[in-house]
Amino acid sequence: MPEAGSKAEFVVGVDLGGTKILAGIFASSLECIGTAKVSTKSQRGVEAVVERIDRCVRDAVDEADLAMKQIAGVGIGAPGAVDFDSGTVIFAPNLDGWKDVPLKKDLEKHLGVPVFVENDANIAVLGVHVAELKSKPRSVVGIFVGTGIGGGLIVNGELYRGFNHTAGEIGHMVLDINGPKCGCGNKGCFEALASRNAIFQRIKAGMKDGEKTLLTEMLGDGLEDLRSGDLRKAIRRGDKFVGKVIEQAAEYIGIGVANLVNILGPEVVVLGGGVMEALADEMTDVITKTAKVHAMPGTIKGVEIINSKLGDNAGITGAAVLAKRETK
Amino acid sequence: MPEAGSKAEFVVGVDLGGTKILAGIFASSLECIGTAKVSTKSQRGVEAVVERIDRCVRDAVDEADLAMKQIAGVGIGAPGAVDFDSGTVIFAPNLDGWKDVPLKKDLEKHLGVPVFVENDANIAVLGVHVAELKSKPRSVVGIFVGTGIGGGLIVNGELYRGFNHTAGEIGHMVLDINGPKCGCGNKGCFEALASRNAIFQRIKAGMKDGEKTLLTEMLGDGLEDLRSGDLRKAIRRGDKFVGKVIEQAAEYIGIGVANLVNILGPEVVVLGGGVMEALADEMTDVITKTAKVHAMPGTIKGVEIINSKLGDNAGITGAAVLAKRETK
Repeated sequence: MPEAGSKAEFVVGVDLGGTKILAGIFASSLECIGTAKVSTKSQRGVEAVVERIDRCVRDAVDEADLAMKQIAGVGIGAPGAVDFDSGTVIFAPNLDGWKDVPLKKDLEKHLGVPVFVENDANIAVLGVHVAELKSKPRSVVGIFVGTGIGGGLIVNGELYRGFNHTAGEIGHMVLDINGPKCGCGNKGCFEALASRNAIFQRIKAGMKDGEKTLLTEMLGDGLEDLRSGDLRKAIRRGDKFVGKVIEQAAEYIGIGVANLVNILGPEVVVLGGGVMEALADEMTDVITKTAKVHAMPGTIKGVEIINSKLGDNAGITGAAVLAKRETK
Repeated sequence: MPEAGSKAEFVVGVDLGGTKILAGIFASSLECIGTAKVSTKSQRGVEAVVERIDRCVRDAVDEADLAMKQIAGVGIGAPGAVDFDSGTVIFAPNLDGWKDVPLKKDLEKHLGVPVFVENDANIAVLGVHVAELKSKPRSVVGIFVGTGIGGGLIVNGELYRGFNHTAGEIGHMVLDINGPKCGCGNKGCFEALASRNAIFQRIKAGMKDGEKTLLTEMLGDGLEDLRSGDLRKAIRRGDKFVGKVIEQAAEYIGIGVANLVNILGPEVVVLGGGVMEALADEMTDVITKTAKVHAMPGTIKGVEIINSKLGDNAGITGAAVLAKRETK
């Protein structure tokens, strides 16, 4: 347990998600010494969410037996388009009413310490690159499969943001021009084929068509409260239908990996996010095999395809890396 | 006309293609002062092609009223995977028998000057970036639509090669998982949907299904010697079927542009290659419109989508840029 001194030597990493807010306190070695979690409840409005972030940060600080004056800064990953310089969330489709929210300014008022805002997938790949891969690979593609699919790029050893600060929007790469409709309005986006939402929709559609699954026994016909972990349980109990749906999603992810390897030629591809965390054992081999079949000969030789060990903590870790860098 | 001095102040840029070899002599200002062209005839074997490159370079030097001793170096773009450091062409699918060809070493023996070998699409985007865009944009995606589709990336102001020196292999990005078979063995690659080969195949398939086209009147039922320029002529004479095929190809290219904008967030997208050169007027508006519909909001704002003015000379220009840099 750290001594309660007065030097601001700790940083906070926050992962602002559509359903939950996670905050972690990090020592300068990037060791996580305390976390807190609250639900987002974005339906209550923007200011309510900002207050909940404030509370979550203070809870985590308390959990680590620290005081706010020991915090040098707060990094935060937001699920949408972000203007890093102003710290504004331009648009976050999974947070009700989040359009041009000056999150940096608002949170700094609440917390009284510097706040730095970045896109959540960018933050996550930064966390994996620095904390897990020790900044060694020169180029990394991060693919985070959860409710949607987010991506982040490390290029020449640095987080790559591109011209409009939107590089890494891999979830809306079209893979199947005639595929299922995506939330963005187009058809056959990566996210519409292989995200948790896409997987759940395929399962529900299959059930309507008379497919039998253990999930109904586990959760009832409406599949209320279905989670990625339930799919893993069903597969391990021999559910062939769910097994097939997950295999197909893994094939789509493999093709997505191949496209990104062809386009970017990365040294490492990192898979993360809730779906990968729950179903890594079921999906990883299929993803790797499919990627190798679809990548051009020579492009994928020696490229590592790995599952992040940081799991759900990739976001808070990357946010802490950002806060640490920016307050140096 | 340059004076025939003895200082080696000129460079040669060579574009080695599947059907023709083009060489250009460039002054240090990157002004092209003479070109030569010979057919490739790769069926005659690797050594014969190397001799033809040698001849083409010497023809261009002569055309510019220079002597070989005034040439500081030769850059060459090859249609395939290249190991830049050794100057080896690892594999070139459109050149018979080209596997692990030590092109740099062989050509240096022939020409007696330093030779530098790079992938043809990389070279082309380098040429456009330096000579046409004056190295201003920090990030550029080059899309070259010809027999196949090649790509090249400028990232942070520099040619980006990636881990295996294969970055920019955009022709095998899957856009339509259930689409037509590609030469690479997969289905629905960008190249299998929108390259000249793909367009010609769609026209021939349509004719078999009874579609009427002015092309038969122009070229006979077998469409011998069909070129991209014939498609333009047919469309301008009112050929609705060819117009529809080209519109569809432009839509595919637009979706390819959107994917690349989503993934990479470039400042400029450059379209080039033989198909674009012949059909820019017919395709550009559809490409731009489709890209804007398919890119995520915010990613494509302010991004320039342009046709390269260098046309067929992008390759030799970029090869000259490379030679100039490497012999400095």
